[in-house]
Amino acid sequence: MPSTTNDHPLDFLFHPRSVAIAGVSKNKESQGYRYLDQLLAFPFKGPVYPVSISEEGVLGVQCYKTLKEIPGSVDYVISCIPHHQVLPLVEDSLVKGVRCIHLYTARLAETQLKDRLDLEKQIVDTARQGGIRIIGPNCMGLYCPEVGLTFRYSLPKESGHIAFVSQSGGNAANLEYQGVGRGLRFSKIISYGNASDLNESDFLEYLLEDPQTRVIAMYLEGVKDGKRFAELLRKADGKKPVVLIKAGRTSAGTRAVVSHTASLSGEEKKWEAICRQFGVIRVHSMQEMADVLLGFQFLQPVSGRRVLIMGGGGGGSVEAADVCETEGLEVPPLPSDMKDEIRSFAPDVWSLISNPMDGSVMGGWEVMVKSLQMGAKWDGVDILIGNSSAIWLLDHPDGAIQHEFSLEFLTDLIKDNNKPLVVFANAGDTTTSWRVEALLKAQEKCKEKGIPVYPNIHRAAKALAHLTGFYKRVNQIELVS
Amino acid sequence: MPSTTNDHPLDFLFHPRSVAIAGVSKNKESQGYRYLDQLLAFPFKGPVYPVSISEEGVLGVQCYKTLKEIPGSVDYVISCIPHHQVLPLVEDSLVKGVRCIHLYTARLAETQLKDRLDLEKQIVDTARQGGIRIIGPNCMGLYCPEVGLTFRYSLPKESGHIAFVSQSGGNAANLEYQGVGRGLRFSKIISYGNASDLNESDFLEYLLEDPQTRVIAMYLEGVKDGKRFAELLRKADGKKPVVLIKAGRTSAGTRAVVSHTASLSGEEKKWEAICRQFGVIRVHSMQEMADVLLGFQFLQPVSGRRVLIMGGGGGGSVEAADVCETEGLEVPPLPSDMKDEIRSFAPDVWSLISNPMDGSVMGGWEVMVKSLQMGAKWDGVDILIGNSSAIWLLDHPDGAIQHEFSLEFLTDLIKDNNKPLVVFANAGDTTTSWRVEALLKAQEKCKEKGIPVYPNIHRAAKALAHLTGFYKRVNQIELVS
Repeated sequence: MPSTTNDHPLDFLFHPRSVAIAGVSKNKESQGYRYLDQLLAFPFKGPVYPVSISEEGVLGVQCYKTLKEIPGSVDYVISCIPHHQVLPLVEDSLVKGVRCIHLYTARLAETQLKDRLDLEKQIVDTARQGGIRIIGPNCMGLYCPEVGLTFRYSLPKESGHIAFVSQSGGNAANLEYQGVGRGLRFSKIISYGNASDLNESDFLEYLLEDPQTRVIAMYLEGVKDGKRFAELLRKADGKKPVVLIKAGRTSAGTRAVVSHTASLSGEEKKWEAICRQFGVIRVHSMQEMADVLLGFQFLQPVSGRRVLIMGGGGGGSVEAADVCETEGLEVPPLPSDMKDEIRSFAPDVWSLISNPMDGSVMGGWEVMVKSLQMGAKWDGVDILIGNSSAIWLLDHPDGAIQHEFSLEFLTDLIKDNNKPLVVFANAGDTTTSWRVEALLKAQEKCKEKGIPVYPNIHRAAKALAHLTGFYKRVNQIELVS
Repeated sequence: MPSTTNDHPLDFLFHPRSVAIAGVSKNKESQGYRYLDQLLAFPFKGPVYPVSISEEGVLGVQCYKTLKEIPGSVDYVISCIPHHQVLPLVEDSLVKGVRCIHLYTARLAETQLKDRLDLEKQIVDTARQGGIRIIGPNCMGLYCPEVGLTFRYSLPKESGHIAFVSQSGGNAANLEYQGVGRGLRFSKIISYGNASDLNESDFLEYLLEDPQTRVIAMYLEGVKDGKRFAELLRKADGKKPVVLIKAGRTSAGTRAVVSHTASLSGEEKKWEAICRQFGVIRVHSMQEMADVLLGFQFLQPVSGRRVLIMGGGGGGSVEAADVCETEGLEVPPLPSDMKDEIRSFAPDVWSLISNPMDGSVMGGWEVMVKSLQMGAKWDGVDILIGNSSAIWLLDHPDGAIQHEFSLEFLTDLIKDNNKPLVVFANAGDTTTSWRVEALLKAQEKCKEKGIPVYPNIHRAAKALAHLTGFYKRVNQIELVS
């Protein structure tokens, strides 16, 4: 097992030896109950202490009236109590030697009410006097599968190499929906809300030094210290990809940011310039973020943009060619010696076989197999894009087996040549149960084989454009340095 | 039942009294078998005659050795035989008094081989001598649910008011995948391939006069007569929306078009100009096309672009605001009198309630219900956008019922005020079976209630931008005329 800690002073946040949850009740809808249930289920690798003024025990675990009554030491406190009860909790934490408090508690600075702004400041000031760091308020906290910390039932128990820093708890959830089924795995997810103490720069600095983290994704509404943040982006440039959503691009978005985490979202043009300057991969939805991250997770570095599109057919092939070129990829025509070779075994259809290599014109399985195998080895392209033909094959339930077969064939094409391959399996978003089952199966197969899968060519091409752009920049930086 | 025919000379195409299928075998994978099976199952409202040189009967229906042996009259022939056998079939069709031949048969002009180009021309010339019209070759033919004509098992049996003219058979299938589950219903789908005789202009002209068709969608790779086509677009302008994919936008796409249907795709800039001039709604994927069509099908005309975003919360709300404004919609702030009223029943959170009306800040069901009901009646917006909160509620299986409840509440908000409402239910594309089931249920509910549903705010906002753009143009045309 590789070293899982680093020397950064914030490493302790991700390796607490014990957790207390303040505000636990038997109400299954309450967040205190949920944190307890999740940490027991994951499980967290250390003692978990529920704190409750009214309950004796919840989920078979003894409750304590206050933090101070807990017999063992407490490193990490999750606060699910109302805002006006937080200050006494912080005072108890000081006595108890707590190192970090995560405030799920909300209704503080984000309300923009003077008394709440003051209270949030007082909480942080009190905590920092005793060296306690604060995550939040108004956030979901930390997910670190290595130690069994989580804020959602459905996040994976296995670790990966992607870190996500999100000012929004909802988006931390959203990334799971958009990518975990396709295989995304994380080193850490950090939902930090109002950033009253620890902020985006602290986490970015930590993750740049974290050996478990190879790719950094961020959802930001604002930054506390723009200069420090830009300096960190400069440090990341060409080393670890940073995939960023910067919300508040428009006037309505900026207003929404203010009422969400009371951040100052700053000027869009400045953000554009900073991202360009430091090679930050800017995306505009959680879906696009998941698509890019999946590419980074599964594909070896590739900076060339020449693609071969394989399988599927007809209008879908034309769309694929248009979309790839629109996204800045190249779809080179097949070289004449390959055309000649195809002519030798497919005299009737060789003139129709080009790039995209349209499966529907090949007049049979044998020609298709030979042509695609030849194409997959072609050194005139850098990346292979496979179309699983879902739209033809999932015409009726019997086709599900054929779709599986088609996918197996496509994903086997790189057995010998180890080229970067992505697959798209387009069967719409709205469909019948048996189609969905077939697609879930396809997804499972791609995940097992470590192949990024997308529901359409648009998303595949966009992800590849971002990915190749990053590696191209890395090459350029290496050339000049 | 409204009149289903029109006076256009091509109306006979969609109302054949009988169909013969040439090239039927017992092989379930063969297209001849499929057409027979589909027409029997739909069912086609008239006799269906399989023609086969080897079979006595298929699927319990007697086969005929040749067209001429069929006892009754034949209006419409579907040809699934190889290209070199087509000419004798056309000659038999002339004898038999056939009115239209649909050539599923391929490997003709699209091969770009001289002998095939000649053969295609000879087929058309021979047919036209006897007044027979040709659809194709290299296409799926006609779907007209009113008479039970179809080329796919899974197309709906009920009619609707959308027509789709597609040079690609695959895209005709794709539209079904992208939109039928959400409720898209069609008057006609026309897959016409190489357009050797009947072409895009013929079909567009027909559909402009078709009382069953209110919206026209087209997938084109090229046009045979640009001047005539532009003239028809001018006629459509402000009357029936035309939603167009013009493929071959890039050099790779143009090459792909040539090898698909041997069309000349023409210059991208010209197409852009024509679309702008005649208010054609240009889209770039079948998914985007389905999204727009769904809006036209379900929503009353609306040209105002002020939206209220309701429900969901956090980062998702910020993203929604950004996306709507980026797509050209407006997200106006709540007026002060509404804020005052909200303050009266939600003193603790009123300052957080804005547009988007973020469900996660409202601190409870009661405040949310009151606020959203008030928002839904607000005359400061033209369109309501509901977020079903899928990302929070589908956290674990018990949440599926809450998601259903949330959707019921959102879709009931327009009971009294009849405002245009669209819903987005974002739970990613890649997920577990129970999440998919919850989303299918949500989709079913929206379909029943006639509400367009989208898997994310990006697609909802883009569809609304196209839709409102069309109706704005209609208003302007009416003002000046």
